[in-house]
Formats: sequence, C-alpha cells, structure tokens
Amino acid sequence: MCQLLGMNCNVPTDICFSFEGFSQRGGKTDEHGDGWGISFFEGKGCRTFMDINPSADSVVSNLVKRYPIKSLNVIAHIRKASVGEIKLENTHPFVRELWGEYWVFAHNGDLINFYPKLSGCYLPVGDTDSELAFCAIMETLKSGFSAKPDLSQLYALLCSQARRISGYGSFNFLISNGEFMFAHCSSDLHYLIRSHPFSEAQLKDLDMTVDFRTLTSENDRVAVIATQPLTVNEAWTKIAAGECCLFSEGKILAKSAASC
Amino acid sequence: MCQLLGMNCNVPTDICFSFEGFSQRGGKTDEHGDGWGISFFEGKGCRTFMDINPSADSVVSNLVKRYPIKSLNVIAHIRKASVGEIKLENTHPFVRELWGEYWVFAHNGDLINFYPKLSGCYLPVGDTDSELAFCAIMETLKSGFSAKPDLSQLYALLCSQARRISGYGSFNFLISNGEFMFAHCSSDLHYLIRSHPFSEAQLKDLDMTVDFRTLTSENDRVAVIATQPLTVNEAWTKIAAGECCLFSEGKILAKSAASC
Repeated sequence: MCQLLGMNCNVPTDICFSFEGFSQRGGKTDEHGDGWGISFFEGKGCRTFMDINPSADSVVSNLVKRYPIKSLNVIAHIRKASVGEIKLENTHPFVRELWGEYWVFAHNGDLINFYPKLSGCYLPVGDTDSELAFCAIMETLKSGFSAKPDLSQLYALLCSQARRISGYGSFNFLISNGEFMFAHCSSDLHYLIRSHPFSEAQLKDLDMTVDFRTLTSENDRVAVIATQPLTVNEAWTKIAAGECCLFSEGKILAKSAASC
Repeated sequence: MCQLLGMNCNVPTDICFSFEGFSQRGGKTDEHGDGWGISFFEGKGCRTFMDINPSADSVVSNLVKRYPIKSLNVIAHIRKASVGEIKLENTHPFVRELWGEYWVFAHNGDLINFYPKLSGCYLPVGDTDSELAFCAIMETLKSGFSAKPDLSQLYALLCSQARRISGYGSFNFLISNGEFMFAHCSSDLHYLIRSHPFSEAQLKDLDMTVDFRTLTSENDRVAVIATQPLTVNEAWTKIAAGECCLFSEGKILAKSAASC
C-alpha cells in the first residue's frame, strides 16, 4: 500500500511543512520507502519531482522540503510497492494532458482483475494497476466530452468512474487538473481545512511546529488531504468509504457517495 | 532563441559535466535566462526537472549539476523567450505519452504563421510554437501507426515532419522516446561522440576539466548534441542545415537530409 497527500488552496501556498512530515513515512516513521513523487501546478504548468529512493532520505526530497514552491494544487505519493516493481515508471503521480491541461493522479490501494480495454488514446508506461486506472479515467473523460465540460459534469463523471473502478478493489485516489482537486476514499483518506483564525500546528511524524498566524493573511484557505492525519493538534475529518470530495480554492465544493 | 543539449549513450551515464557548462549559458556566459528544463529517461520512466529561473543560478539546477542521474537519453533546454511568456507551461522539454512510451521534445528556433490543425489527441498546454510543433509531430506519429512501428519507419516519418515544419521557420529540435535520440538542425546543432580511447575534456563556459579515462570502460559510447560546442579541446561536428541525425547507443544510426 501507499500514502497520499494533496493540497488545494485559494492563494499559491508552499507545502514544505506538510511534506516534511509526510516524507518521514517513506522509510522512517512508516514503511512506504519504495519511491515517492510530488507534482506542483504553477499556473497551467506542472512539474513533478520523483525518485525511487525513500522520501525520508532522498537528495531530491530534501530539495522539495527546503524549496518553497507556491502552488494552488499539489499531489504527492509515497509508495509501498504491491503491483509493479520499484522503477521510475511505476512511481506516482502520473501525468497526462487532456483538453490542453495537465492532469495529475496518484492512487493508494490494489485493484484485482482490473483489465480495462483501452483504445490507445492513453496507455500506461509502467505496469501498475494505478496508472492503468488513471488511463481508463482519462479515456472516459476524453471520449465523454470533445471539449472541457463544466465542473458539475466533470464531477459527475469522476464520481461514476470512482464507483466503477472501486468495484475492483481499494481505490483511494487524488486527481487534479490544476483548478480543482478530486478525492475518492475506499478505506483511508482524511482532510483538514486551514482558514482564519489560523493557529499553530504540530507534525505527527517529526518534532516540528509551525505558527500559521505568522504566515497567512485573513482570506487564505488551504485544504490538506492525506491518507492519515499529518498533525496531532488539528481536527482532521475522515472521508467515508465510498465518498468523493471535490475541493476548489481551499473549500469543499461537493461531497457525495461515489454513486452520484 | 534558446539552446539545446542532448545525450544518447550505450550505458547509463550522468550528464553533470556537460550540464554544468551548458547551464552557465542560462544567464551567465549567455543570455538564455528565461527558464530551463532537463528530462532524464531511466528505464521506461522519465523525470523532468524545470524552473523559470535562470539555470546559472537556480536551486533546482544546482541539484541537477550535483546529483548524478544515470540515463541513456537526456534532453535539456535553456530558454530565451521569443514566443510565449516566461511561465512553467512554456518551459521545455515537453513530454507526452505515445504507444505506452514517454516522448520528450525540445526546440530552438521560431516558427512563423505555424497554425497546424490538431484533432485533439495532443494539445499544447502553454502558448509556444515549440509545444504546438511537438503536438503536431505526435499526432502525425499516432495517426500514422496504430502501434509502434520499426525504427526505420519512425525515422522516415520524423524526417518528413522535420522537413515540413522547417518550412515555417527555424526548427532545431531534439526528440527521444528513451530508446533513440532524433536531432534536426535548421541553423545550429553540433555533436560529439566520446568513445575509447577517452581523453580529458575542458569546458568552454567554466574553468572545469574532466578526465574521462578515469570514469569510463572500454565499451562506453556517449553522443553529446548541443547548439554550440560545450568543450574547447574536442572535435565537435556541425550538423548541416536541413540535416537529420538518429542516435542510438551512442552511435549515429542514420544521417540524412530532412527530405528523406
């Protein structure tokens, strides 16, 4: 299994604090040491840092921890390999282009006997069930709409895809096009909204505290989504099994059972 | 205009020495300070480091210079913005997936009145003529072959695309699928093959020397391709205007006018 981390904000925000704690679980405070990756949207652009070394002890993850990249949407993943060897091509997040936008996806779980028939518009490069599921979702989106539909149509299609693919196993995932962040929970996924009045947060995996009062302005809103809560003194909400959440500008826009 | 750097080898090799010199041209020894990027193939996987800051003075480029990533195919680019603002989405190299492989592309030059009609299977995210040309090439490859053809067919189609798009302006470019490196020269592109017996090389842009005799074995072969030679004491070959080169395992497999 693996762990997921997502961030969705209304103003460009760096994820250094959350990633500092999260990355410890990649070989130090937890067993997810089979590679890691993180994708940052910056405007319409997107850059991904990844490595097959454990995130707790990687030259590249040390850069990500110390280099504050301001982003509205970030997806990170630490891997405990189940399907697919420890190789760069099996390292999440995966990225594809659709309707002239980059789409980023990361998954935690296992899909059993999942062999979707793909037309070829999106094909996996590696051999994980995760990238296969991502390609299947992307193909459904592309074949469903010749141009980008409105958000409610996108949400409905993502919910129905989450429900369909969940039939094959555990399918906790995050997907983002740089505008919104969609989350589906099969078993473990939590979120937290940080907004005014801000307070101090203490990491769970590291002796590290940050006082968000000194770093934020009144209108800032940040949603953090993680497999397991990252801080010990904040109120994380568990997303129910089978539930989908749509985050935009640091708020929950929609929340519903995957069967919507 | 911009500058290109490519590497194609028969054994996984790091590009630290060449990139150290090349990156100086991004704001120090030359004016290409409007962002930079570098893509490394590792197995079937591919990771890209990029930044909108000048490569001569970027936190991320400092990591790339010091972190030896072993790769068979690398493409790097430093940008002097002409078409498209200085934004991450306009930063080369660009990456897309085709036939279950990542394809990486970077371009130096300007295309005038180039408005190809794209079906939508690959669309640009940013607003450079370069990404548009890449999408046009990818669409032609995908529509030409439902599955990956043999290398000679690929080479012929890439040559014809290079010739066609060169009709719109200056089109120096590198493209790779992780197996081979294809180069087309409109104006400036040079290459060098390093093989046994190896010798010492002195960078042009920095007081730095490396003795490849101490770092290589007899069978190693490395092709380095760059807009302008990177070293002062090696014999670089200029690729003629209108010429295409196909590099594989550190050798030139084919070389021909783009009209082939």
